Amino acid sequence: MIERYRSKVIAQIWEDRTKLDAWQKVELAVVEARSLLGIIPPTVFMEVNRILGSTQVYLEWWKEREEKIGHDLQAWVEERVRLLPSELQGHFHDGMTSYDTEETAFLMLLKYSANIVVGECTQLLEALSTLALKYRRCPMMAITHGQHAEVQTFGKRCLTWHREIFLARNRVRDEAARLNMSKLSGAVGNYGEITPEIEEKALALLGFKPFFGATQILPRQIHVPLASALATLVVAISKIGVDIRLGARSPRPIYQEPFGKSQKGSSAMPHKKNTISCEQLEGMERMALGYLTMIMQNISTWEERAIEQSSVERVAWPDLFHVVMRSLTVCVKVIGGLRVYPDNMIQDILDTKGTWAAATAKNFLRPRLVAYGISAEETYRIVQLASFNAFHPSKTAMDARKEPPATLKEARELIERVFGDSAIRCSIDAIIANASLSVVPELDATQEEVDKWNGALRKLFAIPGIKDNEWRGVFSVEDRLRNEDFLFDHVLLFREAPPKV
Amino acid sequence: MIERYRSKVIAQIWEDRTKLDAWQKVELAVVEARSLLGIIPPTVFMEVNRILGSTQVYLEWWKEREEKIGHDLQAWVEERVRLLPSELQGHFHDGMTSYDTEETAFLMLLKYSANIVVGECTQLLEALSTLALKYRRCPMMAITHGQHAEVQTFGKRCLTWHREIFLARNRVRDEAARLNMSKLSGAVGNYGEITPEIEEKALALLGFKPFFGATQILPRQIHVPLASALATLVVAISKIGVDIRLGARSPRPIYQEPFGKSQKGSSAMPHKKNTISCEQLEGMERMALGYLTMIMQNISTWEERAIEQSSVERVAWPDLFHVVMRSLTVCVKVIGGLRVYPDNMIQDILDTKGTWAAATAKNFLRPRLVAYGISAEETYRIVQLASFNAFHPSKTAMDARKEPPATLKEARELIERVFGDSAIRCSIDAIIANASLSVVPELDATQEEVDKWNGALRKLFAIPGIKDNEWRGVFSVEDRLRNEDFLFDHVLLFREAPPKV
Amino acid sequence: MIERYRSKVIAQIWEDRTKLDAWQKVELAVVEARSLLGIIPPTVFMEVNRILGSTQVYLEWWKEREEKIGHDLQAWVEERVRLLPSELQGHFHDGMTSYDTEETAFLMLLKYSANIVVGECTQLLEALSTLALKYRRCPMMAITHGQHAEVQTFGKRCLTWHREIFLARNRVRDEAARLNMSKLSGAVGNYGEITPEIEEKALALLGFKPFFGATQILPRQIHVPLASALATLVVAISKIGVDIRLGARSPRPIYQEPFGKSQKGSSAMPHKKNTISCEQLEGMERMALGYLTMIMQNISTWEERAIEQSSVERVAWPDLFHVVMRSLTVCVKVIGGLRVYPDNMIQDILDTKGTWAAATAKNFLRPRLVAYGISAEETYRIVQLASFNAFHPSKTAMDARKEPPATLKEARELIERVFGDSAIRCSIDAIIANASLSVVPELDATQEEVDKWNGALRKLFAIPGIKDNEWRGVFSVEDRLRNEDFLFDHVLLFREAPPKV
Amino acid sequence: MIERYRSKVIAQIWEDRTKLDAWQKVELAVVEARSLLGIIPPTVFMEVNRILGSTQVYLEWWKEREEKIGHDLQAWVEERVRLLPSELQGHFHDGMTSYDTEETAFLMLLKYSANIVVGECTQLLEALSTLALKYRRCPMMAITHGQHAEVQTFGKRCLTWHREIFLARNRVRDEAARLNMSKLSGAVGNYGEITPEIEEKALALLGFKPFFGATQILPRQIHVPLASALATLVVAISKIGVDIRLGARSPRPIYQEPFGKSQKGSSAMPHKKNTISCEQLEGMERMALGYLTMIMQNISTWEERAIEQSSVERVAWPDLFHVVMRSLTVCVKVIGGLRVYPDNMIQDILDTKGTWAAATAKNFLRPRLVAYGISAEETYRIVQLASFNAFHPSKTAMDARKEPPATLKEARELIERVFGDSAIRCSIDAIIANASLSVVPELDATQEEVDKWNGALRKLFAIPGIKDNEWRGVFSVEDRLRNEDFLFDHVLLFREAPPKV
Repeated sequence: MIERYRSKVIAQIWEDRTKLDAWQKVELAVVEARSLLGIIPPTVFMEVNRILGSTQVYLEWWKEREEKIGHDLQAWVEERVRLLPSELQGHFHDGMTSYDTEETAFLMLLKYSANIVVGECTQLLEALSTLALKYRRCPMMAITHGQHAEVQTFGKRCLTWHREIFLARNRVRDEAARLNMSKLSGAVGNYGEITPEIEEKALALLGFKPFFGATQILPRQIHVPLASALATLVVAISKIGVDIRLGARSPRPIYQEPFGKSQKGSSAMPHKKNTISCEQLEGMERMALGYLTMIMQNISTWEERAIEQSSVERVAWPDLFHVVMRSLTVCVKVIGGLRVYPDNMIQDILDTKGTWAAATAKNFLRPRLVAYGISAEETYRIVQLASFNAFHPSKTAMDARKEPPATLKEARELIERVFGDSAIRCSIDAIIANASLSVVPELDATQEEVDKWNGALRKLFAIPGIKDNEWRGVFSVEDRLRNEDFLFDHVLLFREAPPKV
Repeated sequence: MIERYRSKVIAQIWEDRTKLDAWQKVELAVVEARSLLGIIPPTVFMEVNRILGSTQVYLEWWKEREEKIGHDLQAWVEERVRLLPSELQGHFHDGMTSYDTEETAFLMLLKYSANIVVGECTQLLEALSTLALKYRRCPMMAITHGQHAEVQTFGKRCLTWHREIFLARNRVRDEAARLNMSKLSGAVGNYGEITPEIEEKALALLGFKPFFGATQILPRQIHVPLASALATLVVAISKIGVDIRLGARSPRPIYQEPFGKSQKGSSAMPHKKNTISCEQLEGMERMALGYLTMIMQNISTWEERAIEQSSVERVAWPDLFHVVMRSLTVCVKVIGGLRVYPDNMIQDILDTKGTWAAATAKNFLRPRLVAYGISAEETYRIVQLASFNAFHPSKTAMDARKEPPATLKEARELIERVFGDSAIRCSIDAIIANASLSVVPELDATQEEVDKWNGALRKLFAIPGIKDNEWRGVFSVEDRLRNEDFLFDHVLLFREAPPKV
Repeated sequence: MIERYRSKVIAQIWEDRTKLDAWQKVELAVVEARSLLGIIPPTVFMEVNRILGSTQVYLEWWKEREEKIGHDLQAWVEERVRLLPSELQGHFHDGMTSYDTEETAFLMLLKYSANIVVGECTQLLEALSTLALKYRRCPMMAITHGQHAEVQTFGKRCLTWHREIFLARNRVRDEAARLNMSKLSGAVGNYGEITPEIEEKALALLGFKPFFGATQILPRQIHVPLASALATLVVAISKIGVDIRLGARSPRPIYQEPFGKSQKGSSAMPHKKNTISCEQLEGMERMALGYLTMIMQNISTWEERAIEQSSVERVAWPDLFHVVMRSLTVCVKVIGGLRVYPDNMIQDILDTKGTWAAATAKNFLRPRLVAYGISAEETYRIVQLASFNAFHPSKTAMDARKEPPATLKEARELIERVFGDSAIRCSIDAIIANASLSVVPELDATQEEVDKWNGALRKLFAIPGIKDNEWRGVFSVEDRLRNEDFLFDHVLLFREAPPKV
Repeated sequence: MIERYRSKVIAQIWEDRTKLDAWQKVELAVVEARSLLGIIPPTVFMEVNRILGSTQVYLEWWKEREEKIGHDLQAWVEERVRLLPSELQGHFHDGMTSYDTEETAFLMLLKYSANIVVGECTQLLEALSTLALKYRRCPMMAITHGQHAEVQTFGKRCLTWHREIFLARNRVRDEAARLNMSKLSGAVGNYGEITPEIEEKALALLGFKPFFGATQILPRQIHVPLASALATLVVAISKIGVDIRLGARSPRPIYQEPFGKSQKGSSAMPHKKNTISCEQLEGMERMALGYLTMIMQNISTWEERAIEQSSVERVAWPDLFHVVMRSLTVCVKVIGGLRVYPDNMIQDILDTKGTWAAATAKNFLRPRLVAYGISAEETYRIVQLASFNAFHPSKTAMDARKEPPATLKEARELIERVFGDSAIRCSIDAIIANASLSVVPELDATQEEVDKWNGALRKLFAIPGIKDNEWRGVFSVEDRLRNEDFLFDHVLLFREAPPKV
């Protein structure tokens, strides 16, 4: 994984030294098992354990050797054995095939990594729980199909996010726990040089049970549920990201992901807070599905084994874990720092113009209007009509819907008409032209500075004509959109419109 | 493909009879080629052509035979040959292996289907072009990262949609055209019983050139570009669907997909227009990626061929075409009937409170304010401050953001406070309680009916207390959200909260 | 799924009527729950149950209605309600949203289907177990990387296949069992019109527990483990198919898939038994991965739900089940009828020329040769040398490896030389030319017929020259390969080689 | 990509410095374009070009800055601008949005990488062509469905491999060439601060044409064909790997991948040459499909853009190129060093016992046997019967097929019987027991050593009983398979078989 998305702790688990340590654990467990079963004297195990336990692998030696013989485990066995006195050498890797060592060690790495993931999930769950409880009385519109549906609390939405992650976390945890079977049954899995007793004892020392029926390797389907669980977790996290992006949309966000103080929003629009963290969560989802596709294909092999699966496992597993961890840490940061706007949530409810309670209203009126000669069906139509009345478009809107502006001039005029209809009066053109800047806590402009600025602005806009002509031109869409014509002419109308400066 | 998403014309192309017709075309071309090359007398071709051309395949006979011998092409050869006099029988399928017949026929089906797709694309392009030109002067906020960015026209957005489809359509068309090589080179592709001359002549009659270097079959990678192009087209269409869903969101849609007159929106909220067509486009995208995954895996086989690819091709190709056609017809319907709200687009521009032109404003002010002792850096800060002033939250909002409501009662009070701040006065609770229903063109309520209803409502709400107590209760979130407590207690607080009625 | 690969029982589960039955079960459970909780009188439930239980859905009515209102569940509710007296109508689908009904019903269909799969798995496991036990003493070479490794029994290989299926079957069974949570919590999952108590009671009647924290729908990740398990099962089955294909390879198969009596092998080579069933298993694998890709993408949705997932679920789930069932039934047929050749398995062991026991031999010799002045290292080299001696290529082989034939004439001569070296004498050219046909049990040729044929052949080959010239020409690669030149000239050497007859 | 599979040249293309160089090329082209169009004085361009062209980016400065503002391109612009005198600063990145710079730069990296791939393909094509021409007269059995089909040359098979790679290479080359459109049209693609003329001129300087109709970014579908082509190439290479693995299978390989002199085969079986390189090709295929899945999902975004695609592009594209390059270099090595065994290819032909020419034989006999009263149908049956006769199993085989060995003792006896039937006499047990070691060129054992060894062996095996009892025991499957019982008891028979030492 590239550095940008790399998890340090995952990287550590998948670096050479951790793998070699795991290999050694497996080899020593087999020697110990033989010793416990009375096949070899206990002193053999104690001595081998002492010597190898006290000397780290000489990585350069190992790598050079691997280069030569093209077999990484065999090279490592040679590196280890060279430290042993000759009478002990035969006891190391005795009767084992490479994958007797590798399988259990690989499972250990998977379990280490899954544990890290589960731990990080717990952090996310706590952040979600805190948010849910904080906002459990804060009403908002629930949204289905992008449409305001019924009212719920924001706490309730957080609670459903919590359940998504909770489900996915539990599955990761459970699938990791189910990875409890391994094999030490030799080159073709029929105990040619090793016995079922040694397998059972050695695996027990490592916390595993034997999988009876291995070939040279374990069936690869054993790993699939964990991969599926990890990918699912990433998609579940990404779903939260999508919901936050949807809620953060202009013009009236109900929440926004946290924004670093030095982070550069658009210089043009200081209120623009791009949801780049949540969008990255979707990038992670796309990658997770790709890694899962790789691992799913890895189930099949030929007969007692071929080694198609090895390169995929070296790449896809650590990278999948990196992607999971990246998703988790980004989401923890987003949820932990989420800025929530209850006022805007409520404005949404108000914007339904009461229709959020239309069904209840209908049920309320039905029995009561009977007395006045109004039928049930009529009551339905009354509420429906009230809804249409409430949403009745203005004359300007109706005109514009029927006939969109035909020129940019008409467009500007329409803007002015809509502006006339609407209640919005305080835009930056007015604030600046009216020299009505005021101090705000988020910026470090002092009252003195603001006074100075207002003074300057007052003078500027006192100049005759500036406000109505030039300044107004600044806020003119006509000017802004002038270059679009090129596109229409060129792309849709196929006019000869050679670029001219 | 299930009936719900099946394209009739695609289904026709992939039914047995069309395939058998294509097989016959290939077989007859080989006979004709031999005749043209002088290998057999022209009368042989004429006679075989006459007999088989005039008698359709007896489908039951063929299926029964296939059942028995487990080989569909061989069964069909027998069905055909039985119609020929014995002296002509040896000339049919002479020196050919099954896939000599099947390959070209299959390519023909792919090309037929791709043509249908390209035709439907043209309809979509026309709809998009019409929309783009109609709204080429209609300003809207362009949106990046879900945030209002700069101003553009809605026509411009349509134009970018047009280019997506245009690119994807061209690729489908071009990849279909590139499927112009086939093979007639026998059981292992080395012209054991057939010659390069016959191959070339027969393929030319069918509009193909020889692919030199086939095994028993063509390399499957030949089909991949078309599959990739088709899947890309579906994703491109789905992108338009996503954009429409995003624009159709409550509370102020800028456009909406068309809504059938009898289509049932929510009974509770008559203005709820669910974007189900556009959402289906995303379902199609998910399926298309699945079918592409199937076809990509189909490239590899063993040596001169095995038949792993056959079942996949029987299923994935027609289903991929069905999915493409479904996407196209749904999108044509949506774009053709799109309801566009220029007024709301403009309201979005106004809602940026002038910040959409902040950069231009800054550039305007910078030189002009120098005269009044204001530096370039200060001008930047002036515009920034004006933006913060413009978006300054109300006291109510600031309070609510600091301290969300702790009880449903506080929630209700907050709603009332926000309501007090806002300009919205005309909600259905007011309309109904004030008996101020009025006639609208969209509904068939007459003036008389409306008068009657208003009369009844007036009487009802004249009853003392009803308006302020009961009616107000209808629009109470306290009541509506009462059951949420159960979830919090149960899921996040682990309280013993046994369901009680 | 196309008819060719359709499972009848799966098709039945996924047809309309079964779905509608499941919907009705859910609706009636809610009515019953309200009755059991004392919310409505028991007679209401009894009456609704009686009426709807005794009248099947009128499918045409329903479909026509759906067409009109564009909502299949709502249309069905109307079809049902019209049968009820008006005072009962309000009790049906009361307070529910469509997906309150659909979710549980859908889970029921998944569970039905999974049960069918598990049952079929049991058949496959029995066939594998029978095979394993029958051949548990039958030695064969275990194969890793396509190379003969150590010896094992064929029973052992079957046992490892058994474990693959056993693992996969158990996972399907367990994941289906884990689908035990559903929801009845209303339009946005916060019990707006329904209570937690009703949800719990009604789901209990259907065998489910509530999932607390649903939105309008259940999180789609709930279905993923089952999809993953099903796809894994298909890949596991396909792995058996690959192993059978590998063992069935010419020239000396150790086993072969069963071959129908009327099945047409190659007319040219009657002993050719194409492994088409096992190859189809790989086609199914490719499809299963595609359907899994579709379902994985289905996890994410917007906020309280959108309906992107619906079309995918209508298509991918039944088709995935069809693919699973097809794989299972094909594999049961193959394993049940597998033809096993212990003699060839043993010939493989012999072909290792003792090297299968080389390690043991080395261990045997090492201590014993010490007495004769041979070191351990030398013993290793002795066994190694013996291995090289055993596999020493013949003079003919060495020559051919150094210098491949340069012309087809040289190729023919090489064939003759290799033939001279080898022990194979009985080929069909000899049998026919020597008129030494004999009766075999597999064919229905009588002794009389064979005598007649031999007589004719004797006469034919008594003709001077026929055997040495013409007949020998029949078996001439020179003739057979004559057209390949065209390919080399055309493709690799770019010679102007215009096809000529 | 992990170091093991990393291509140095690809890594170089995708490291920071190359990307920053590409960014600078784009920025300078825009300045140059403005200068050429007369918008700014030529000296501005010359000066900016001189200063930035002579000072490399200070990477640490840049990274630190990026960390702070969370925007890598903006941080780089600041790093560059700080080198310019203040009057030139406004000319750098003037009127551009980040993706105006990034899009073209990214396309340049894709094209660089694709060029490297195409170059490596050419090497592979040359190796394949050489092999094809060398063996164009070397006959072998073509194989369909794993069964010997008709005869072809090995050169022909190489030629079909050549065509697979040729097709795939051409598609990579063509799709890279088609990446010739980019954009410089500003933040929302409508030339807000830049003009179509500048876009056209600047892109022309970089070798691109404008894509009219961009949003803030190019449509991501533009990249898909190249990704699809690259993945296809990897699968095509993997297909060659599969074919080599199939041909290299024990007991009689027709070719083998090259084997390093120090490479460790199995210590037990010195002739075991594991096809690990070819197997890795399949691992690469699995990964390539995963990366393609990632890139396919990257097509869609929201409105004028969101940044979900960025992380995927940072990871999937370079890793896909690494995978492609790894596949190519491994395959070049395998094909370049392939060991080919024409003798074994011919032995395969002989093993068909003449059936490879059965069809021709039938056609030969049919007219000639008519004279002796034999019908066409009878001729077919004669050839068929001859085939069955040729393959008639021995008595031992027939017995074994009917009744497999029931005990390991019976298994040993069966081995002896098959051994008796077969012509194989020279296995290592005989060579060693007979003291008949001989010198071979592949090993460095001298004649003297061999003499010494034979002497020692002679003495050892002179000891009474050793050969018939103990030595024979070494080659006893009874002993070897003794532990398998445990598996059967445990897994299939569920016997209480607690492990005991």
